[in-house]
Order: sequence, then C-alpha cells, then structure tokens
Amino acid sequence: MNLANGRPYLAIPGPSVMPDRVLAAMHRAAPNIYAGALPDMVQTLWPDLRALAGTAGHVALYIANGHGAWEAANANLFSRGDRALVLATGRFGHGWKESALAMGVRAECLDFGKSAPVDLAQLEAALRADPGHELKAVLVTHVDTASSVKNDIAAIRAVLDVVGHPALLAVDCIASMGCDPFEMDAWGVDVAVAASQKGLMVPPGLGILWFSDQALARSRSADLRTPYWDWTPRATATEFWQHWAGTAPTHHLFGLRESLNMIAEEGRAVVWARHAALARTVWAAFEAWGVGNPDIALNVADPAHRGHAVTAARLGAPHATRLRIWLEQKAGVTLGIGLGMALPSEPAYDGFLRVAHMGHVNAHMTLGVLAAMQAGMVALDIPHGPGALDAAARVVAGAAGA
Amino acid sequence: MNLANGRPYLAIPGPSVMPDRVLAAMHRAAPNIYAGALPDMVQTLWPDLRALAGTAGHVALYIANGHGAWEAANANLFSRGDRALVLATGRFGHGWKESALAMGVRAECLDFGKSAPVDLAQLEAALRADPGHELKAVLVTHVDTASSVKNDIAAIRAVLDVVGHPALLAVDCIASMGCDPFEMDAWGVDVAVAASQKGLMVPPGLGILWFSDQALARSRSADLRTPYWDWTPRATATEFWQHWAGTAPTHHLFGLRESLNMIAEEGRAVVWARHAALARTVWAAFEAWGVGNPDIALNVADPAHRGHAVTAARLGAPHATRLRIWLEQKAGVTLGIGLGMALPSEPAYDGFLRVAHMGHVNAHMTLGVLAAMQAGMVALDIPHGPGALDAAARVVAGAAGA
Amino acid sequence: MNLANGRPYLAIPGPSVMPDRVLAAMHRAAPNIYAGALPDMVQTLWPDLRALAGTAGHVALYIANGHGAWEAANANLFSRGDRALVLATGRFGHGWKESALAMGVRAECLDFGKSAPVDLAQLEAALRADPGHELKAVLVTHVDTASSVKNDIAAIRAVLDVVGHPALLAVDCIASMGCDPFEMDAWGVDVAVAASQKGLMVPPGLGILWFSDQALARSRSADLRTPYWDWTPRATATEFWQHWAGTAPTHHLFGLRESLNMIAEEGRAVVWARHAALARTVWAAFEAWGVGNPDIALNVADPAHRGHAVTAARLGAPHATRLRIWLEQKAGVTLGIGLGMALPSEPAYDGFLRVAHMGHVNAHMTLGVLAAMQAGMVALDIPHGPGALDAAARVVAGAAGA
Amino acid sequence: MNLANGRPYLAIPGPSVMPDRVLAAMHRAAPNIYAGALPDMVQTLWPDLRALAGTAGHVALYIANGHGAWEAANANLFSRGDRALVLATGRFGHGWKESALAMGVRAECLDFGKSAPVDLAQLEAALRADPGHELKAVLVTHVDTASSVKNDIAAIRAVLDVVGHPALLAVDCIASMGCDPFEMDAWGVDVAVAASQKGLMVPPGLGILWFSDQALARSRSADLRTPYWDWTPRATATEFWQHWAGTAPTHHLFGLRESLNMIAEEGRAVVWARHAALARTVWAAFEAWGVGNPDIALNVADPAHRGHAVTAARLGAPHATRLRIWLEQKAGVTLGIGLGMALPSEPAYDGFLRVAHMGHVNAHMTLGVLAAMQAGMVALDIPHGPGALDAAARVVAGAAGA
Repeated sequence: MNLANGRPYLAIPGPSVMPDRVLAAMHRAAPNIYAGALPDMVQTLWPDLRALAGTAGHVALYIANGHGAWEAANANLFSRGDRALVLATGRFGHGWKESALAMGVRAECLDFGKSAPVDLAQLEAALRADPGHELKAVLVTHVDTASSVKNDIAAIRAVLDVVGHPALLAVDCIASMGCDPFEMDAWGVDVAVAASQKGLMVPPGLGILWFSDQALARSRSADLRTPYWDWTPRATATEFWQHWAGTAPTHHLFGLRESLNMIAEEGRAVVWARHAALARTVWAAFEAWGVGNPDIALNVADPAHRGHAVTAARLGAPHATRLRIWLEQKAGVTLGIGLGMALPSEPAYDGFLRVAHMGHVNAHMTLGVLAAMQAGMVALDIPHGPGALDAAARVVAGAAGA
Repeated sequence: MNLANGRPYLAIPGPSVMPDRVLAAMHRAAPNIYAGALPDMVQTLWPDLRALAGTAGHVALYIANGHGAWEAANANLFSRGDRALVLATGRFGHGWKESALAMGVRAECLDFGKSAPVDLAQLEAALRADPGHELKAVLVTHVDTASSVKNDIAAIRAVLDVVGHPALLAVDCIASMGCDPFEMDAWGVDVAVAASQKGLMVPPGLGILWFSDQALARSRSADLRTPYWDWTPRATATEFWQHWAGTAPTHHLFGLRESLNMIAEEGRAVVWARHAALARTVWAAFEAWGVGNPDIALNVADPAHRGHAVTAARLGAPHATRLRIWLEQKAGVTLGIGLGMALPSEPAYDGFLRVAHMGHVNAHMTLGVLAAMQAGMVALDIPHGPGALDAAARVVAGAAGA
Repeated sequence: MNLANGRPYLAIPGPSVMPDRVLAAMHRAAPNIYAGALPDMVQTLWPDLRALAGTAGHVALYIANGHGAWEAANANLFSRGDRALVLATGRFGHGWKESALAMGVRAECLDFGKSAPVDLAQLEAALRADPGHELKAVLVTHVDTASSVKNDIAAIRAVLDVVGHPALLAVDCIASMGCDPFEMDAWGVDVAVAASQKGLMVPPGLGILWFSDQALARSRSADLRTPYWDWTPRATATEFWQHWAGTAPTHHLFGLRESLNMIAEEGRAVVWARHAALARTVWAAFEAWGVGNPDIALNVADPAHRGHAVTAARLGAPHATRLRIWLEQKAGVTLGIGLGMALPSEPAYDGFLRVAHMGHVNAHMTLGVLAAMQAGMVALDIPHGPGALDAAARVVAGAAGA
Repeated sequence: MNLANGRPYLAIPGPSVMPDRVLAAMHRAAPNIYAGALPDMVQTLWPDLRALAGTAGHVALYIANGHGAWEAANANLFSRGDRALVLATGRFGHGWKESALAMGVRAECLDFGKSAPVDLAQLEAALRADPGHELKAVLVTHVDTASSVKNDIAAIRAVLDVVGHPALLAVDCIASMGCDPFEMDAWGVDVAVAASQKGLMVPPGLGILWFSDQALARSRSADLRTPYWDWTPRATATEFWQHWAGTAPTHHLFGLRESLNMIAEEGRAVVWARHAALARTVWAAFEAWGVGNPDIALNVADPAHRGHAVTAARLGAPHATRLRIWLEQKAGVTLGIGLGMALPSEPAYDGFLRVAHMGHVNAHMTLGVLAAMQAGMVALDIPHGPGALDAAARVVAGAAGA
C-alpha cells in the first residue's frame, strides 16, 4: 500500500526544499526593471550576500546554474592556455576541471578519490613543483555534492602561504554555502562560487560569485572574459542592467531577498549549527544500521571531513536503488542518487545514495527520513543494525536541549 | 538550540495540512458568479461529494465552520421545543448538544465519558423510554475530535431499527470524513455533517451536509429553518446563487474541487487504508512508550473504537504541555492540545495531547512526528518505554509492503 | 476576432478584483488556531475594522456571505413577531426584508422604486404612524448593489431623531463599505453590515457586523439569536474560538489583514475620493453616449444619489446583453448583469447592465472598460452619442491633476 | 489625486505581464531533477517550441537572459577572429554587435538608423564585397525592442541567396517571438534567438535558441564554444542534465510549459493577429494625437516596418518623461522609456517613450493605456490632436467584429 500521499519531501542535494516564503515572494507580477521596487530592493542584497560568505569583497549574480557559475569563475580567472590546479574530492571537482579544460585552460588535477579530503602534503608538493608560478589558480570544492567530502579551506590557504605561491584560491561552495561554516576573508579565499538552489533555498537559476580585490585585479587580463561572464560590470554596475548584463532575473531576486531574510532572522551561525546537528543525526542512524552490516557505511570515515548539507552513504547494490524507489512510492521521500560513486562491480546508483539535509530542513523532516528509511529496510529485508532511530532521536535531543 | 527551521508540520486535528494543489487552486482571480467556469465546475462537485459519503442523497454546502454546520443540521431537523437525543463520547458531542439547546431544542444527553463509545444498551433503553416517539432525532459524533473515540454508526442504526424508533439519525463526521470509512446509505444515516478543514484538506470556511429523502421531507416542518440554514434551496437550486443563499464561496469551491480530485485519484478506500495504517503507526509508538510508564497511554483502550484521523493520548501533567512546546520550538511540529480531556487534578492541557494524522499526511510525516516526540521526551527527561520508533517503522513496513 | 486574451477584468459588483497582495496573503500553510501568528494577528483587525466604519463600537466577523450577514443582523435585532421597517431602493433592500420575514419578523416595506433614494417624508410618516414604538429597527441599504441608488443615512437618522422614535437604525453597507464615505458613529447608525468581497477586496466568505452599545444591549432579548449568529461572544470573546463560534476562517483572515493594510496605506478618505472620481468618469461616458439616444441612460438621475462603487445603467434591450457578451468574448471585460432592473416589456438582463468600479480599481482599468464598451457599441451597431471617451479622460485628468 | 491604486499594468517591452496561469505553474515545490514529472514534462516542450518558431530544426534552452542568448549564438557561430555582418536598426542590433566584438569576432555593422528597416541594396552590396565568403554570419534583429523597427527576414534571406553568399542568417526574435509572424524554416533562418520574458510571458531567466542542421554542422568548428554555451548537448541530450549543462531551471520550465499551453489554446496565428490588431489600435491613437502636433509621432513611418509587440513614439521633450511619470503615479500604467532614441538636443528618455502590447494583452488593457495617456496629456497640457480614443476603439471594433 502507498503511504506516500501527503506532503512529499524532496531530500536530494539540490534543488532543496523551497520555503513557502520564498515561493510566495516569487509569485508576483513582473516589476519594472528600470526604476522602483526592484532596483531599490536589489541594493539590499549585496551587503547580505557579503555577510553570508564572510567577506568585504565583491559579489556578482548570474542568471545561470552552478555549471554556469563555474564557467563564470573560469572566464574571469584565466586566459586560454593558462595553467590551473584542481583538487578533486568527488565528481564535482572533476566537473569544474572539465569546464576549465573545455575553455582552453590547462587544468591539472590532483585526485584524492571519493572518500577523502585534499592531502595537504600532495598539494604542497604540487605547488613547489611550480617554482615559476605558472599555476594561476587552485580550484577546490568546499563540499563535493556527490561524495559529501568536505575540505579544510583554511588549511589549503595555509599551504599556499607556506609555499609562497601566488595562485588565487577559488572555492566551489555550491553544496555548502548557507549550510557549513564558511569565512571567505578569514580563510583567504579569492573566489567563492555558489548557486541559488541549495542552502539558499531558491529555485535553480542564480549563480553567485564572491571575489577579492586581488581576483578582480587579475581578471583584467583574463582573455576568457565575455560580456556575459565578466564579473566587473556585474559587481560595479552604475546602471541597473549592468548587474545582469541585460534583463534582471526579476522573480528569482525577490526569492533570494526572502531567503536572505530567513537566514538573517535565524542567524548565520545558528543556521550552520542546525545543519551540523541534523548531519550528526543522520550519521548516527547510519552508524547504527551499519553495525554488523558491512554493506551499510557512510562514505566518509572521519566526521570532520563530512559536509553538513548532504550525506553520501553506501547501502550495497541493489539495496540503494530499491530503497530509494520504495521511499518515493511508499513514504513520500525522494533521496538523492549516488552520483559518480558506483563501484566497478555494480550498476550505477545501485550501491550508494545520498540523503540531503540542506537549507529549509528541521528535526521533524530529518528524523522522518531516517524512520522512513528504516521502515523501507524492514519492508525490503535489507539487513541493518538495531537502534538507529533511538540514536538519531538522542542526537536531536542532545543538540536541541530541554 | 532550535532545530525547527524547516517546513513546519501542523499536526493538530484541524485545520489539517493544506496540499499545495489545494492552495494553488485557490490562488486565482475572482470568477464571475453568474456564468462561466465557476458554475460549470460546481456541477461536478455534487456527485463527488455524494460518492465521498457513500450516498445517493442530497448535499448542501454552507459558508460556515463545523459549528455552523451543526446549526444548519439543527435548523433543518427541529422546531423549537422538539426533543432530541444526543450521544456524547467527547467534548464535541456536548458541543452539538449545546448548540441544539441554545436554539430551543430539548436536547437530552447520554454521556459515555471521554474514552468509550456509545453503549448500545443504554441507547436502546433510552429509545424504548420514548414510546410516543417524541425524540425527533439522534445526534452522535462518528469520531469525536477531542477524545478520538469512534462510534459504530451502523450498530446505532440497528438499535433504532430494532426498537422501531422513527427518529432521524444525524452524524457528526467532521473529524472522520475522508479519513475513516463512512457509508451513509448502507449504514442508514439520515444526516451527515462535515467541514472543509480536516480530511478534506481545504481551509476552514465550508460546512457540508448530506441528507436523506426522509430528512428532507421532515425538514419541511422544521420551524428553526432560516433562509441561510435551510438546506432545501441549497440542495435543489435552480439558480446558481440559491446554492449559497447569496454569493458563492468562490475560492473555497476551487479548493474543494482540487481536494476531491486528489481523493478520487488516490481512491476513497485507499485514502481510508492510508489513514488506518498511519493511525496504527502512532498507536504502536504510544503503546511502546507506555510500557512501564502508566502516565503514557492512549485515550481509547480498544483499537476498534479509535478514530483514524486523530489520536488523543495521555502523557501526564505537565509533560503534555512541555512536550508540545518543545516540539514546536525545537523540531517544527505542532501537536493538538488535549481539548476537554483534563483530569480534575491537573491544569487544562497539561496531561493530554492529540496527534493528528488527518488528510494530507504520509509515512514520512507521521514517523517524523513520532521520532521528534521521542527526541523531546529524551530532552525533557520524560520517562518512556523503549522500542517505540522501531515498532512504528515496523507498522509502516508491514502496511506498505515491499 | 477575439481580442480578450490578456489579463481579464471582472467588473461585476462583487466579487471584485482580488489584489495580488490579498491572494498572496491567503496562499499559506494552515496556521495553529489556538496560539501563535493567527490569534496575534487577529487582534490587529479589530481597531482597523472600527476605523474603516468610523465607529468606536463593536465588531463581529462571520464565516458567511452577505445574506448570512443580513441574517446575523436580524438574529441579533429581533425576536419572532417583532416589527421592522425596511426602506427598499432596489433588489437588495427587498432581499433583506425577505430574510427578516422568513425568520418570523413582521417586516414592513416602504418601496421607493429602483431609481430613487428613500423619501424622508414617507419615512417620517411611517414612524409617526407607530406611536407605540413597535418598530424595533429600520433597515436600509446604504447603496443597493442592484440599482446603485445611494441613500443619505445621516438624513434618515435625523428623521428618527426628529420623530423621537427609538427604533435602531441598521444599514446594509455591503456595496459601499470601503468605497463610499461612511461614518457610523457620526451618522448615528446602530448596526452596519458588510461582506468581504466588494470594497474589501477579499474572496467571498466573510460577513462583518459593526454595532453600537445600544444595539448590543437590545440584542440580549432577541430570541432569534443562535450560537452561530449571536454577536456577543464574537465581539467580546475571551477565548479565540469564540470569535468564530468554532474554527476560525484562517486564510480569509490573513486576506482581510492585507486588504486593511492596503486601505490604511492609501488612506480611507483617499480610497473614497478615488472611487468618487472613477464613478464620475463612468457617469461622464454614459451621459455622452446617451445624448440623442434615449435608450442609454444612467439609472439614477441625481449624481448625489448614485453609489460610487457600481453604476447601473440602461442600454436598451437587447443591447445590454449583446454588449456584455461581446466585451467578455472580444475584449476581456466582464460587466455585471442588470439584477432586478428589467422592464416588464423586456427579457431579464437585456436592457440594463452594471459597471463595477469597486475596490482594487484604477484609472487605467476604468477607462479601459469604457473604451472597450464603445468599441463594442461600434462593432454591434449600438447607437451612441459622441465624445464619451474624451469626456471620461477629462474627468480623470481633472481629478488626478498634473 | 492618485488614481493608480488598482491592478497596475506594466506596459514596458519586457518583462511583459505574466499570466496568472504562468505564475501559478511556477509556484510549486522543487521537483526531482533526475526522474519524474519534470523530465517527462520537458519532453513536451521541444515540439511546441519548434512549432512556435516554425521550424523542424533544433532547440536549446539556456538559463540566461537575452544578452546571454546573444552570447550563446555568438559562441556557436564563431571562432575568434571570424568576420560577421550585423544589420542594425536600433539599439539592440548594436548590442548584439558589441557582444560579438567583445568575444573576439570581427563584427562589422551596417547601421540603418533608428527608424528604418534594413536597406536590401546596401546588404547586397556588402555581401558582394565579400567574394571570399569571410563573413560567417549575418546578424539581424527581427524587431528591435528599442526602435520597434521590424525587418523583412525573408527578403534578407533572398538577398543572401541571390548573391550566393553562404553566411548563416541569425535573427534576434527577442521582441517578436510569439507576437509577430515568424517562419524560421520557410524564411531560411539558420539561428533564431529569443527569451522568456516578452511574447512568452515567463519571468526573465530563459534564453532560447533554434538552429538549423547547417548551423549545427558549422558550430562544430566554432572555437568560442564553452561547456555552458555549446548548443549541441543542450539540443541532443541523452541525459536530462545535459539539456541544461547542469541543474535544470525547474520553475521556469513549468512556467514555459503553461505559456506554451496558452499559445496553443489560442493558436499561434490568432496570437499574431491579436498583436497586429492591438498594434494598429495604438498606432491609430498616435496618428490622431499627432495631427497638428509635430512633436507627437510614431517612430516608424511605414506600418509594414513596425513591430507588433511594442511601439516607439516621439512625444517631444520633456513630455515623454512627464507623461510616463504621471501614468505610473496617477493611473496605474508604466510605459517603457525611449531606449537609445534621444535626440542630441534633449535629455535621455525625455522625448520618446515605448508602449508595449506584448504577450498577455487584450483590448481592455490596450484601450485603457491609450485613454489613460490622453487623460495624462490633458492633465499635463500636452497638446494633442482630437479623436484618438474614438479612432482606437474603431480599430478594435473592426478587428473584433460583431
């Protein structure tokens, strides 16, 4: 019997759940794009976007998705033939590299696999192997949406500093912005890349770039810049249309305003702490299910290297696919597929899955996902260790307090 | 720490969760009320409303809430000074009686307490004590929203038949319509009363009366009828405005259309089965929590007498209030207060609470509520038996199947 | 060819155009009805509703339409057998009378036809003919929605005072509230009746009663009161549910809040002045069209007796119906039918129509209606005098200024 | 006095009025982007988009605005250093040229001023001056949004054919698609460019490219292609994400689906005819106002060269600015500024304005704009000839018929 007919919960790592407030803010008549409410409102976005990323630097908004935001970063960072160093800890690190390669950048990759963060020693060696400072930038994902591996960005910056390498540090925060702590200026990040549809809880369609003065200065010689991707007019517009290289994304901007209102009301640090607590809730359940069941395991062994917005986990083929289908059809929950995580021996998606806990998500939603997962395991005879739900509830109790 | 900032779940026994489809259907420009889309659409409501209640009888819609629907029923059933028999199994049974009394009906009450259904022997005795057939109608709640006690309506009808008493049988289905099985014609019900905001998943503002030919015939002599409450023009309108005794409730009607679409798509019997399964899920958790903790107990001992849309339970004062507050502030769940259930020794609401599982509700939502409740009990040091969440997950697994 | 496919304009006298802000405010998840945002918000409605009607008296909200609001007024004003005097200046005056009669009130009617206001001399004579003060109340429409006749309420109060008759003065403001100036206390009104779907720009479903201390005092002996209609608990509730005699009309209340916000932002007097200017715009066009065409004429000769929210006018059968159909199919405008205005010699609706200019309406909308009407007259070969659109534009220019 | 407080009408040439149906379709929970309703629905978009443009060719959708769509076209048409011929008949023709130049294309411009279409003889001469066929493509606006000049695309193709020049023909249909007749295949167009926010009535955020097999073949050697702009995977995706080079623009796609539904229901040819009729309505008013007032004139003398979605007109400085402000503040209408049309002697915007009649627009809306404009001219003492509104109403009458 189908027990899914209620409010469905889309627990994939983006698009995340759109808050009613955001959707309501976007349900409006088209505004004038030359004067009035829209341009006035947009002036309030810039300081809030800077505060979100922890920077006093520049911000550019693009009508684009995350791949477009990568391309925007590449266009402002590089000229054709430039060298770049990409630190890959999952599918999306490779994706950024492929974008750069296709644009004519000589992007080289240090691949740290799918379950571990950047090895700082390898990074240091690679930088020292470039005494001529040909590497224009280091590209790295803060949290890889596919593997849920989180990298220590401040530590990566420290390696650059120790080596004395002038490469810019560009960070893909698409899966982490608004979920995991991120301090752009304190951590020495030159370029941060995000998109609207994850921690920012706005439908897909906006890419966001933050960048430092130094990155702005270097971009002046980047010959991959085009009118659409060039961040300079977008960040320093004197006429409203220049922010968008044309017509503004009117409705998304009102959605973003509401999303930033929600984050401000809750407080950025509280938002981060909520994500951390819900991530630990999910981890506790998986750890209990995995006792005695080697097929069930979190993808990243060390909690310090796990992102707080999405959890990649192994369930063993074909259980991951069976459970995902059961949850959607029987319980009203849609989990994420295991993107790029398949073992050579198994069909794509069948062995891994991802649970998102990203953006507009609370204890009820997360606990409900875990309890529904366990119901599915019972129904599908997927072996699993005991006590997972009690453990998850205890994490919530401990985090929430009395 | 607050872990509530996500999509809140209002798990009170009405208003229930409004589906996005229903809210979207109501978000529209005002329609013409004399011709066009609205009158055309309304013609499709009547057969679907009849099918929902299992009747070939009449239907009247009112712009009103449940109390208004009671009053409408009373106005069509009675003249001033008429006698009525009310069978009360909770707060709302008494409420209907009070409405009748205030309108000048001599309503007499058989009170079966707050945790038990109608005692058929007492009913039989009361009917036999009226050999002159002065009692014009028997009023009873199918499920009392406050106590969650469910009555066996067919059995009550059988008593009337056995006694040969001609009183009309009027049933308050406000908390049960669209949730618990109800077969108006097969069960011999003369008047059924419902409202929009529970199993029908539409904002408060519509009352619904179904009535038999016999009830229609008797209403012709009911002197409590007024132009607004008289069901005859509403059910037999030849001009559109007569359905509403004036202006139609335009937006609610489009919401109701969408709600009935959803019920039709799922199937009335499947909707009922979903509610039954989710009710048993909730019961399983309470039963486990109650092991060794006499303070925690379902209000109704016999599952056959429990409604499927709401569960009243005892947690012991002050735990019920503390837990409700914790859930709302920390987890994003709002439970119902224990309406009219307080023991003499305790403050109102502190000892009982109600969990709704009514209308637009699925396994994820219900399991999430239970897991969040257990997290709250842990956080608040409310003693509770073990294994509740595993038991609840097993009920879902068993009902949903592989 | 159809030139209607754009934003349609429903220019019927209720429901009026619902502002996007109102519809957006109603598109929301169901709220808790025991605590939180809803009860807090509702406290802000009462002073704003009082200010709207110009009274320091009491307010009661009903889940009902205008006919329900009439019935609520009757229930609180009368006991069965009481006498009332109804002053009818159109279809809806008679409607209120019929409601009272059906409830057992001996309502007597002074009928002033369909195109003229109350004749004060006749009123005085009728009051003087009741030296025993059996008439408990005088019922009158401020503006009759069908005829668009407006009555001078202050003058009617003066007649009561001159005669020294203690009857309460009850006024139907359904078509005028929020459109025409109304000063309940200054004009000595005891009961004012309105509904949500006209000047208040909220979907049908709310009735509103304002009443004086004296009316409250007299209602204590009104035996037509029922739990649903009794205004005392609604106006003086100590528990939230008492305001609604049960479940609150949650979504309509948020819509009403937004509507009152809009009125407050514009200013009640400015809203009235806008309606006056747009009414004069419509009148100017009809006066021009009527030159040389006796078939075309405003229903009310004296501008002082015309309501500002709706204009009833004669076009001559069958032109009214033909033009209405043309406008809806070809131009995107729906006008109101001529309710109760037909001459004996012509089919219903064919000779009269009504143009609403009520609530959320501006110069563009009103001028567009008039220009579209003239286009229709040209297309349908309906004779009409010249210069109507220029005249209408001049009225707007004069009212709006430079 | 302000007579603007009603439903405002944004009559600027993009974003146009978003239909309620489109906004409602976009007000929805985020969908899964890997399977289910979204990918299924998207399959239905392609044939409808092809039908809209009159082509059996390829379609690619971009998350971008019109400027992004230009850049996409350039990226697929050109390698750095390629030559292109741009035919400019207004501000936006120059904009496309500037985009190409900034991307490294040697774009040469034939400038036909702001009030006239492409001179075919000049075009022929320019093509004949390129016997080596270095010009890779001819870029031209179908209708320039700024000047409202419309070009005869089929005639331009004929010149290419007569000369035997193999340059691809790329057409900017941003202001015309869904408004003016356009037959991509019949007219021999290789690339057509559009965006969501004009005739398609969807919020800004989608760019659309249609392209021929030949254009696809030539694009394989275009070295300006990047992963985001490359149209090949977008048009020939085997995995859903490839259509979007990443995450899909979920909500816009549902909006586009609804917009295409509306166009299909009305019929593409009927939509075009509606725009033609409303354009002639606007022209008729301007022609009347201009009699005896040389300051008032349509920008394009020959009706055959005027676009049907927007009308640029001269009012004389400072009247254009004064009237626009008056209309917004007093009447609820926002007109477009005169973009790039200013005379050397006058401040920007003060002399010209643009009236949009684009997308979701009907006779009521358009006639209302004209009547409100005349009211503003009266209020502001702007001299204007008589009879404009009667003339406009006659055009509507003639087009709509009886």
